[in-house]
Amino acid sequence: MNNNIPLPAITRLCSVYQFLLSLEKDGQKRISSSELERRLGISAHSVRKDISYLGIAGGIGAGYEVSRLKELIGERFGFAEQKKACLVGLGRLGSAILQRSSFPGGEFRVIAGFDSNINKLETIKTTVSVFPAYQITEMVRALGITLGIIAVPAASLQEVAGRLIDGGVRGIVNFAPGLINPTVEGVFIRNMDMMAELRILSAQVRVRDEINT
Amino acid sequence: MNNNIPLPAITRLCSVYQFLLSLEKDGQKRISSSELERRLGISAHSVRKDISYLGIAGGIGAGYEVSRLKELIGERFGFAEQKKACLVGLGRLGSAILQRSSFPGGEFRVIAGFDSNINKLETIKTTVSVFPAYQITEMVRALGITLGIIAVPAASLQEVAGRLIDGGVRGIVNFAPGLINPTVEGVFIRNMDMMAELRILSAQVRVRDEINT
Repeated sequence: MNNNIPLPAITRLCSVYQFLLSLEKDGQKRISSSELERRLGISAHSVRKDISYLGIAGGIGAGYEVSRLKELIGERFGFAEQKKACLVGLGRLGSAILQRSSFPGGEFRVIAGFDSNINKLETIKTTVSVFPAYQITEMVRALGITLGIIAVPAASLQEVAGRLIDGGVRGIVNFAPGLINPTVEGVFIRNMDMMAELRILSAQVRVRDEINT
Repeated sequence: MNNNIPLPAITRLCSVYQFLLSLEKDGQKRISSSELERRLGISAHSVRKDISYLGIAGGIGAGYEVSRLKELIGERFGFAEQKKACLVGLGRLGSAILQRSSFPGGEFRVIAGFDSNINKLETIKTTVSVFPAYQITEMVRALGITLGIIAVPAASLQEVAGRLIDGGVRGIVNFAPGLINPTVEGVFIRNMDMMAELRILSAQVRVRDEINT
């Protein structure tokens, strides 16, 4: 088995995994790479190549067994172990994230929230334990948190990211505008930047309309 | 010039564009593809290939002129024209998005909000015009809105997406869990799914730790 799976393949396999979860719920037993192509917009060729990283072949004729493929991806990526996450920034966006963060399947659990505004810590209504931001590093380490979600204003981004990483966080979902800098070897970041997404959409529309005129 | 630019190249060029905006603000005049590699994690080879889609060459020795490259990407993708966007779902997440949606640079403007809860329309504090959800298609068409942001519960996703597309929306940023289905030719979608992002991060950490042990 090839241990090193490139990021695009990881990303695609994660989409496949999510899709398999919904197929399993609907009771579908098998799926072909061409159906995956049609439903997820990932070419059947890529799907087969990505799945080959898991150490299994097949899928051209009979397709894949949904539950088996889901298990294989889950095992390869360690999805069975519940991961502990924390949220920094308990403003409007942070509260909305907290409200939505009861993840089905128990894969992730947000077990701590942080904010630099003590007033917010005292008034927020949540079942998650909340702490002042200066305790991030200490609490992340003490609680064994490996994932962090950042929902602070851009000006605090670098400091917050540094504190999370110092505490041992390995993966960050960043909702603040801007890039985390410097990047640290072995720490991974996913940026959720709405303006960046709108820009990509505009560009896609433009490129497509130019082809069709 | 090749009109058809693949999505990964569009995505990378958009990251480069965003980065060039910040360089311009900092007063940096030139940038090399290897510096772009270091700062954005995009290989210098990909950077050069992506930029070749814009119809210019160079960049190996002297690097690119920041303002010129920014202009070229902006022209190619039509970033100079302001795009009109709307937001559907004015709950906690939607309100947070509205609060953050005064996009710098004036590239995008959220000009309408929608919710099925009339009570929310009456109580929300915003300068953006708000309308009941049954008017989505009509208002999107009347106002010439081309981009939609969806922040509704999963159960309403398909219906809302359908109404936006019927009104003429060409690009959707989707914060609701789940995929928009069926996809419509010429309409583009970017999913902002925090659980999916956490899963990708977990997988990256796992794959990396296996290589290093």
